Amino acid sequence: MLPFIRSDLALFTAYKPHPGSDTAQPVSSNQLDRLDTNESPYDLPSELKEKLAWTYQQVIETNRYPDGAHEELKSAIAEYVNESAGFSSPVFTTTNISVGNGSDELIRSLLIATCLGEGSVLVANPTFSMYAILAKTLGISVVEVNRNETTFEMNLEAAQTAIEQTQNPPIRAIFVVHPNSPTANALTAREIAWLKSLPEHILVVIDEAYFEFSQTTIVNELLPLPNWVVLRTFSKAFRLAAMRVGYCVAHPELIAILEKVRLPYNLPSLSMAAALVALQNRKLLLGSVPQTLNERAKLIETLSQQPELQVWDSATNFIYLRLKQNASQLQDTTLKALNQQLKANGTLVREIYGGLRITIGTPEENARTLKNLQVALQV
Amino acid sequence: MLPFIRSDLALFTAYKPHPGSDTAQPVSSNQLDRLDTNESPYDLPSELKEKLAWTYQQVIETNRYPDGAHEELKSAIAEYVNESAGFSSPVFTTTNISVGNGSDELIRSLLIATCLGEGSVLVANPTFSMYAILAKTLGISVVEVNRNETTFEMNLEAAQTAIEQTQNPPIRAIFVVHPNSPTANALTAREIAWLKSLPEHILVVIDEAYFEFSQTTIVNELLPLPNWVVLRTFSKAFRLAAMRVGYCVAHPELIAILEKVRLPYNLPSLSMAAALVALQNRKLLLGSVPQTLNERAKLIETLSQQPELQVWDSATNFIYLRLKQNASQLQDTTLKALNQQLKANGTLVREIYGGLRITIGTPEENARTLKNLQVALQV
Repeated sequence: MLPFIRSDLALFTAYKPHPGSDTAQPVSSNQLDRLDTNESPYDLPSELKEKLAWTYQQVIETNRYPDGAHEELKSAIAEYVNESAGFSSPVFTTTNISVGNGSDELIRSLLIATCLGEGSVLVANPTFSMYAILAKTLGISVVEVNRNETTFEMNLEAAQTAIEQTQNPPIRAIFVVHPNSPTANALTAREIAWLKSLPEHILVVIDEAYFEFSQTTIVNELLPLPNWVVLRTFSKAFRLAAMRVGYCVAHPELIAILEKVRLPYNLPSLSMAAALVALQNRKLLLGSVPQTLNERAKLIETLSQQPELQVWDSATNFIYLRLKQNASQLQDTTLKALNQQLKANGTLVREIYGGLRITIGTPEENARTLKNLQVALQV
Repeated sequence: MLPFIRSDLALFTAYKPHPGSDTAQPVSSNQLDRLDTNESPYDLPSELKEKLAWTYQQVIETNRYPDGAHEELKSAIAEYVNESAGFSSPVFTTTNISVGNGSDELIRSLLIATCLGEGSVLVANPTFSMYAILAKTLGISVVEVNRNETTFEMNLEAAQTAIEQTQNPPIRAIFVVHPNSPTANALTAREIAWLKSLPEHILVVIDEAYFEFSQTTIVNELLPLPNWVVLRTFSKAFRLAAMRVGYCVAHPELIAILEKVRLPYNLPSLSMAAALVALQNRKLLLGSVPQTLNERAKLIETLSQQPELQVWDSATNFIYLRLKQNASQLQDTTLKALNQQLKANGTLVREIYGGLRITIGTPEENARTLKNLQVALQV
């Protein structure tokens, strides 16, 4: 071990983008139905790609640093956030918005701003693994509570106890996805009420990565809550995963801190242009959401008829299912075999927390998902 | 102050990309000669922009996450690094390379990997301000020594004393730019010998952002030095500042740690494609370097004849100068006035550490720099 490396980093395991594949990027990814990372199955329409290509060639100077202030993009985001909150007047402004290299950079900045050296972070598993991973890279301890195995609601009693009893350091932030990944459930009224009961010295991060599919948002309740922040992304419904743009909505004082902490030129020029174009064309891009929801309903309905499967309801663009067996070594093996069989037949999904998380793709992909699952279960 | 924010962040001042301008991005930046951020004055040739626009439209799927492993780009970088080290056989491989969202992300990762919670960082001022800024965002204390005011060589005696005497926490990393910014001097043999004398538990970061202009590199000496890392960037001679791509060369064990610490999808797909295209066309792109060096020589020669100015030699794509007066309140005022006069006449430069750092631009821009400086000095 190199002697200048922080001792706790040696054993640390990084995030694996495609843990189900043998290489970091599937070799023949174009032949696979890539349903493992909850992307949109659709690229931007060709007229928008053309427009962005033109913008790159005619407007962007490759040799110049990007606009580090993001004002134009923040302004467009603020307008969209007001719209999604149902506000007819401009309640949120650019002072409420910070933009990151994906939500990942914002998660890291929030951890740096709050917990670094001073606090622990609370998560309820199963949930998005990046919160704990990024915390650990920063030497921040992660307090983990579980969820109800049937409803996937957070274990609020355990969470409350953790908040009250965790010392050295105390819990300074809590991260939840709304709706949750990988379990696809939105926050319940009971969960939201509990989060609202938390004291003001704890930051509450609500990650609304899948908001466009769920249409459940708490941004309209943010104003009186200076310790709350909503994360969103352009990587899912807006189809810009390749461009790496996320944003957050919060109190101007918190935003000012995040702006200090972030890298000064964190977004490439074309990524900013793409996010702006996506917002300007949001009706067009979000027009595919109803199809996703219909496809999801069909998939859940059909798969629920498979006696071997427990399939949960979903508020987002993926579904979560498990094999109906006792949680035993055998189940793990069978789930793994099922996943491998799916992959061998061309359907790449995410094996996670003893279940499979399957992205809703195109109708053709979903038909293959169904067929491949049914075939695999008959083996 | 929000009670969940780290107390030391409140007073912290962020990096200002354009401190000389009234807004974050100059309103009329296209009318200004932008000589304040050491960019190349030239965009990519139109055939390369066309190729990248085509790649975006035809190859990149906007809706899919980027390749998080960077193997193809790392391989091309390793080849270039071997070439720049004068190695005819492939000594460095992809295991020696990590790629970041600009060098900034790599600087942050290096600080996280080494100093976070355990060590201080040493810098010799004046130097690139991001090392200290990023350290402070992470709560890492920064030990600062000075440089000789004539040669800008580091005060090695002060540095040695700092290394020996700094406790709680001890110095775990040292950052130097080679050649230095803003003072444009390359490391001397004496400085390199001192850096080599440092013990293996201190990380030595050599930032070769301007290597293509100086052709001074220490990559050929890296192999026996597991505690050394070289940073490089595509933002300067390769003309890709808008794309945000930096890289580092180091021992595979350190690279493995950096790969764990970085964000999993830190580079947008088009940024990776652009860096690859830049490397494939390096002869073409670096073909403008000799012009920059000629222009630099002319500028230094002419400005050295101004009796009011002290102009330093330069090993890079910018020059550094000060007013020949005693360091007094008066000097600061005069320098500020000089800078404002330059800006009023359309030349944007960087006022820093009691001097002006002026990027070498196109021949036309440099002629205006000269004229505007001469006019301003006659006022």
